[in-house]
Amino acid sequence: MGHLWHLLLPHTDPGMPSTSRGGFVHIKNPHLEAMDEDVLYHLDLGTKTHDLPAMFGDVKFVCVGGSPNRMRAFAQFMHKELGLEGDGEDLADICAGTDRYAMYRVGPLLSISHGMGIPSVSIMLHELIKLLHHAKCRDVTIIRIGTSGGLGVQAGSVVITDRAVDACFQPRFEQVVLGDVVVRGTDLDGGLVEELLACSKAIPDFPTLVGHTMCTYDFYEGQGRLDGALCSFSNEKKLEYLKRAHDAGVRNIEMESTAFAALCGLCGLRAAVVCVTLLDRLEGDQIRASHEVLQEYQQRPQRLVAAFIRRRLGLHAAAGNTRPSSD
Amino acid sequence: MGHLWHLLLPHTDPGMPSTSRGGFVHIKNPHLEAMDEDVLYHLDLGTKTHDLPAMFGDVKFVCVGGSPNRMRAFAQFMHKELGLEGDGEDLADICAGTDRYAMYRVGPLLSISHGMGIPSVSIMLHELIKLLHHAKCRDVTIIRIGTSGGLGVQAGSVVITDRAVDACFQPRFEQVVLGDVVVRGTDLDGGLVEELLACSKAIPDFPTLVGHTMCTYDFYEGQGRLDGALCSFSNEKKLEYLKRAHDAGVRNIEMESTAFAALCGLCGLRAAVVCVTLLDRLEGDQIRASHEVLQEYQQRPQRLVAAFIRRRLGLHAAAGNTRPSSD
Repeated sequence: MGHLWHLLLPHTDPGMPSTSRGGFVHIKNPHLEAMDEDVLYHLDLGTKTHDLPAMFGDVKFVCVGGSPNRMRAFAQFMHKELGLEGDGEDLADICAGTDRYAMYRVGPLLSISHGMGIPSVSIMLHELIKLLHHAKCRDVTIIRIGTSGGLGVQAGSVVITDRAVDACFQPRFEQVVLGDVVVRGTDLDGGLVEELLACSKAIPDFPTLVGHTMCTYDFYEGQGRLDGALCSFSNEKKLEYLKRAHDAGVRNIEMESTAFAALCGLCGLRAAVVCVTLLDRLEGDQIRASHEVLQEYQQRPQRLVAAFIRRRLGLHAAAGNTRPSSD
Repeated sequence: MGHLWHLLLPHTDPGMPSTSRGGFVHIKNPHLEAMDEDVLYHLDLGTKTHDLPAMFGDVKFVCVGGSPNRMRAFAQFMHKELGLEGDGEDLADICAGTDRYAMYRVGPLLSISHGMGIPSVSIMLHELIKLLHHAKCRDVTIIRIGTSGGLGVQAGSVVITDRAVDACFQPRFEQVVLGDVVVRGTDLDGGLVEELLACSKAIPDFPTLVGHTMCTYDFYEGQGRLDGALCSFSNEKKLEYLKRAHDAGVRNIEMESTAFAALCGLCGLRAAVVCVTLLDRLEGDQIRASHEVLQEYQQRPQRLVAAFIRRRLGLHAAAGNTRPSSD
C-alpha cells in the first residue's frame, strides 16, 4: 500500500474539538488500562493477537454504514478516488474471522459495516474506539454514510445531519446502565457539517441539505409505518406524527444516529452523519424504487464523502466526477 | 426437495395457543389487506415478484439467530438430520439479493439470520411474519438459537428461556410508537419450554436448564461490562447488579429475546428462545475461549433444536448424537 497520504495530511487541524487531547481518542474507562489483554470479540481482533498500532496507527478517516456489501463497494471506490495502485478488487476483509461486521482498509481510511440499529452500531463503536485507542490513532474523523427515509424532501436527497434526535424529537440518547437510565447528548461537529456542505456544492447532480435526523429503535411502528406486521394507528395519526417531526426540523429518519453521535462525541471523535433518502415518508411507506435507482442513491453519500476526503488530502481534481461501481 | 415431512407432521397440534385461529399467523394490521403489493424490502422478497405460497406455504419451523454463517451451518446440519437427499452444501440463500439477512430452506424448516439487537431482529420479524401470512402458513413454531452471557451457570450451558425480561428484570418490551411508549408482554410458550427440556434429556454431553433471559440494548455498559470504551461504574456495582439479576431468576443475557417474544406472541406464533452461554458473567466480561471451544458451544442449541424438530417429525433415531459441522 502506498503511504502517500502522509505527505498530504495537514500538520494541524484547526477544526478539532477543544475536548481533544493531542488528537487521541478518549477512552472514558479507568478499568481498561489494567487489562492484560483486550479481545475485540465482534471484530475478531485483539491486543495480543494483532499489532494494532502497526495495522491501524495512521488511520485518519473511518466511514461506517449498515451493509457490508456497501462498505466494501465504498472501499473499492475510495481506492480509485485516492489514486492507489491496483484495481482495489481484491481488498481483504480485516474482520474475515467473524461475520458480525466487515472492515476494509484503503490508505488512511477504514470502511466498516455496523448492521442495523443502535445496539448493533454500539457494539461496533465500542470496539472500534478501543481499536483506535490501542493503535494510538490521532485526529480521526468518522462519518456514517447510510440510507434513510426522507421527510418532505425529494427521494435521493442527501441529508447532512446537524442534530440527531430521538423519536420524541429530543437531542438525546437514553441508555439503561446497571438498571438506571443514563441520558447523553447527541452533538455532532458543526465544522464538519459546513465542510461537507461546501463539498456538496461541487456535486450538482443530486440535492444535498442540512437537517435534523430522527433515530428510532424500530423501522415499522417506530417510524410510523402502516405496512408492518403490527399497526394500531390510522393514516391520519401517522401523518400528524410525521408532520410534527418535520415541523421540529427532522428531514430524515434512520436507526443509528443518536448512539453514533453520543458515543463518538464522548470519545472525542469528530463525527458526521450523511444519509441518502430512499423515499419521502410523507408520500408512502414502502421502498419501491428499482434496484438500479436504489443503487445509484446509495452511491450519493459515498461520492460526497469521497469529495470531502480528497479535499482534506489536497487531492482536488476530479472530486465528485467519478462514481462508485454497484455492489 | 423431498416433501416427506408432510407425512410425518401430526394432523392436530394440542400445544397450539388458544389465540390461534386455524393455526394461521395473525397480522394485526388492518392496512395490510388494502395494499396492492407488499415489498418485504430487507428480505428482497415481495408479493408481486415471488409466489410466496408456493415458496413457503408448507413451512412449519423457523429458526433464527444472529450470525448468517451460523444459520447457514444450521441449515446444512438440518439437511443431514432430516435425511434429505444430497449433502446440503449447495443451499442457496433465498435473500441473496440483499446482505441485510440470510435465509435458507431445508424441508419444512426456514433458517434465517437476524443480526444483533432488538431493532435488527424486529425488522426481520415484521417481514418474516408478513411472509408467513402471505404464504398462508399454518401451525408454525419459531425458535431463536443464539449466544449469550451466562449468569451463575457454567460456560457452554444451554438456557431455555421461560421468561424474557428487560434490563430492569421486568417481562416487558417497551417501544415508542408515534412518540408514545407502548408496553408489550413477553410471554413465551410454556409447552414448548417443556418439550425442549424433555429433548435435552437425551443429550447428556452438555448442561441444559430453564431460566429467565435478560435482554439489553447494549453489550458493554448495558450488560454491566467493565471493558467497553466507556465505563462509569466499579466492579462492585457491576457485581451487585448482576447478582440482583441472578436473584430475580436471570440465567443468561442477550440482546433480542424481549422483542422476539413480544412480536411472535402478538402474531400467534409459538416461540422459544434457546441460547448457549459463552462465559459466566459473574467471573468476567471478555469472551476468551478458543475459536474451537466457541464453535462447539454454538452447536449446542442447534443440536437441541434438531432433536426437537426430529421428535416433532417422528424421526427419533440418532437425535442428539450427530453434531453440526463448523461454519
